[in-house]
Amino acid sequence: MKWPKCELPMFEPGWVWLVGTGPGDPGLLTVHAVNAINQADVIVFDALVNPAILELAPAGCVIEYAGKRGGKPSAKQRDITFRLIELARKKKRVLRLKGGDPFIFGRGGEEALALVEAGIRFRVVPGISAGVGGLAYAGIPLTHRDTNQTVTFVTGHDARGLVPNAVDWSAVAKGSPVIVMYMALKHHEAIVSKLLAAGRRPDEPAAIICNATLSDQSVVETTLASLPLVVAENAIQPPAIIVVGAVVELRAALDWIGMMNGRSLTVDTWDMCRQRETG
Amino acid sequence: MKWPKCELPMFEPGWVWLVGTGPGDPGLLTVHAVNAINQADVIVFDALVNPAILELAPAGCVIEYAGKRGGKPSAKQRDITFRLIELARKKKRVLRLKGGDPFIFGRGGEEALALVEAGIRFRVVPGISAGVGGLAYAGIPLTHRDTNQTVTFVTGHDARGLVPNAVDWSAVAKGSPVIVMYMALKHHEAIVSKLLAAGRRPDEPAAIICNATLSDQSVVETTLASLPLVVAENAIQPPAIIVVGAVVELRAALDWIGMMNGRSLTVDTWDMCRQRETG
Repeated sequence: MKWPKCELPMFEPGWVWLVGTGPGDPGLLTVHAVNAINQADVIVFDALVNPAILELAPAGCVIEYAGKRGGKPSAKQRDITFRLIELARKKKRVLRLKGGDPFIFGRGGEEALALVEAGIRFRVVPGISAGVGGLAYAGIPLTHRDTNQTVTFVTGHDARGLVPNAVDWSAVAKGSPVIVMYMALKHHEAIVSKLLAAGRRPDEPAAIICNATLSDQSVVETTLASLPLVVAENAIQPPAIIVVGAVVELRAALDWIGMMNGRSLTVDTWDMCRQRETG
Repeated sequence: MKWPKCELPMFEPGWVWLVGTGPGDPGLLTVHAVNAINQADVIVFDALVNPAILELAPAGCVIEYAGKRGGKPSAKQRDITFRLIELARKKKRVLRLKGGDPFIFGRGGEEALALVEAGIRFRVVPGISAGVGGLAYAGIPLTHRDTNQTVTFVTGHDARGLVPNAVDWSAVAKGSPVIVMYMALKHHEAIVSKLLAAGRRPDEPAAIICNATLSDQSVVETTLASLPLVVAENAIQPPAIIVVGAVVELRAALDWIGMMNGRSLTVDTWDMCRQRETG
């Protein structure tokens, strides 16, 4: 393999790098993320980081778990930032590895603020967010010319674990034909009710993507109104991404992983005609 | 460098791979994207693909430009898809390289639909979208616990190059404390007016990010109301991402690239206090 000859930064002792690993498939690591892992003295990783990725760590690298998962006992955010600062002050190369992207519902901003306050120097490496990667692997475009010119990412619970009441669900329902929900299983019934109350159609397509981009990724297609029943019947567990919107219908044509496993893809002729007209 | 030992797919002749390269920095290529470039017979690339990335192509790989840029003469979408099909039918390994992510305002869904209709087999590799990468390099979190639990991505012009009227700008303004706009320079005045009319504050922080993640990335901070004046005064040219929302203020603390160039970062004490309370 020929790798990019771009200038890859050197990891200086006493720095913290906040790095997104993407949703799970190690093939979605960026070159910068691989470069970071190769040089780390200590890796502090989240629950959603694929353990296979940690195997890239150099000999002697200390690997610490700082998982946070809804409903389970986990390290407090404050403890994690204190630990990052402590390690940096010991002049370690501290790699904070996060699933997805550090700045999309990843609390990377909070951790970076604490580092700056403590006078610790840092770098941020973005990653493929689970909503982006999971939908790509499911064959569901986040945007499609005929269906949406906006897409909204929303978290399914706030910092206290409740339905985020700061979210104007009615406006989100009206403003975003496609809504991608992170960590939305816990409160999916309440959120579905809010979207229906705001006028989203009960028969609107929806999908639940579990274990995004991993070899055991599963995708269940349903409708907005049937989503709670489908979650219960399939006993769906986190981590999961929920997507609501007409783009989900395109999966019948674009499920390329399904195709490789024998699924026959079908294109809606009407959709193709519209494309020809406007092409 | 130790690279991931994940199973990297073999590029079969007659297939088309739709691959996102990320916004520009070759270090944001994914391992899958590098693997794709290494095996391609033909690369059909967009205007927003960094030319440095094309240097990874193997000897003998044919590289074709299929750029599309607002206002400039460019290949029609229909011609591009016909070309992809033609090349695949000649049993080439056809790599369709796109800036950013193929499914976020990248028309990847349209191209994939045309491939499926033509019976061409394909794969999708997600990439770091310009909104995600550009904001990370600007030190602006897309989400931050104290400011937003939703983030909306919106395109600044529709398929015909007009202000997207299908967008309910009022609902977007109400539903999304943080709005990230792609290709928004052309109609920025109209869009700013719509957001102000919908009740967004004139003094709300906004930023314009040009050449996202490249070494010549530039970031201009302003306010929503002053944005048109700032675009004019700085003669800002595409490609640009515009972001509106309180998260822009965090750049004063989190501009890590600025820090490496000597900028002194300052944390808002009040923000840190709030974090401690809820930590």
